[in-house]
Amino acid sequence: MEVKVLKDILETNDNIAAANAAKFKENNVAVLNFMSSPGAGKTTLVIKTLEAMKRAGIPLAVIDGDIASSVDADRVAAFGVPAVQINTGGACHLDANMIRNGLDKVDLASIRLLIIENVGNLVCPAEFKLGEHKKVMLLSVTEGDDKPHKYPLMFSEADALVINKIDLIGSTNFDMEGFQKTIREMNPDVEMFIVSCTSGEGLEAWDEWVVKQVRELTG
Amino acid sequence: MEVKVLKDILETNDNIAAANAAKFKENNVAVLNFMSSPGAGKTTLVIKTLEAMKRAGIPLAVIDGDIASSVDADRVAAFGVPAVQINTGGACHLDANMIRNGLDKVDLASIRLLIIENVGNLVCPAEFKLGEHKKVMLLSVTEGDDKPHKYPLMFSEADALVINKIDLIGSTNFDMEGFQKTIREMNPDVEMFIVSCTSGEGLEAWDEWVVKQVRELTG
Repeated sequence: MEVKVLKDILETNDNIAAANAAKFKENNVAVLNFMSSPGAGKTTLVIKTLEAMKRAGIPLAVIDGDIASSVDADRVAAFGVPAVQINTGGACHLDANMIRNGLDKVDLASIRLLIIENVGNLVCPAEFKLGEHKKVMLLSVTEGDDKPHKYPLMFSEADALVINKIDLIGSTNFDMEGFQKTIREMNPDVEMFIVSCTSGEGLEAWDEWVVKQVRELTG
Repeated sequence: MEVKVLKDILETNDNIAAANAAKFKENNVAVLNFMSSPGAGKTTLVIKTLEAMKRAGIPLAVIDGDIASSVDADRVAAFGVPAVQINTGGACHLDANMIRNGLDKVDLASIRLLIIENVGNLVCPAEFKLGEHKKVMLLSVTEGDDKPHKYPLMFSEADALVINKIDLIGSTNFDMEGFQKTIREMNPDVEMFIVSCTSGEGLEAWDEWVVKQVRELTG
């Protein structure tokens, strides 16, 4: 009985996600869904990415999801980029219906890239499609290299994995080689980027990947 | 309708949690529920705590919750402490029924402290009572000082807040004074500990607090 209810919820979510995807296609907008633990650096990566998109002449908007507060959207809006904050009011993930409602506040015709910053959580965000083209996952090295075993769905579904806070790796026991081997076994096609959003190290390859996604997805 | 379903789920959980609490009382066992983001250092704090309990002559057991894997329980069992791993099979939190089932594998009569290590998640674990006496929350400084605004329930319900990875604070922009002020406003009674589970800094006060809980709760 409980399982049935969950199935219905997910099916409805998938239908709304498909409608969102159709709307993105109609408006020629590429959509990335950023997911990570709390504090892995999603908002900082968003800000680095919007600076790169400015340089590349790609107009974008951001939808930020959080349980409460508008801390993240405020940080993004300070850069002159349209930002919509969704407060989930307790839910630990964004769902397709929240995005559908949030889209009322986004002028899709004027952008080519939409970044959705999900609620900080390695579990449920991976289960709810939003209509996005690509799932981007961040992991900071300070979280430890054992996370793929504990949160396998998130790591196996990501299209891109940004390994952040590389400037701090010397203070951790993070085994980069072993970690990357584990990821390759779980998810052979994922693109990996090793970066520090603080020092800027490694961000060039990431920026190029985002530009490539926008060009390929929006023609 | 959806709200009603959620209410029923939470009420049932509360009933089972009350039964767990009665069982803990009957067996004279103090119970701490450890919660944090993935990678904040819960398992390492558990290991530091079990070493301190050995020194204090307090027998304990650990229940570890994770979506998948037995990485955490394996780490604990290596120290000769009874450890039970609960795999939630997708659920982003432990609930009272999972603990009730896990208790079948714990010899409560032989211990005075049970540590429950929840799934790494700052959202739903705060909503599900397990029957524990105290909620212990960890935050690592590498996650950033803006987390209380984004995850207010967890921070306002904690009985103890362990601020971990203080050895890395020099590489972050974490504002400890501002953070502690925010916490005091949200949760005036919380006990705060600033520690590094790696260097051992600050753990003495934490160890004393745990011993005090066991003495007060188990008489």
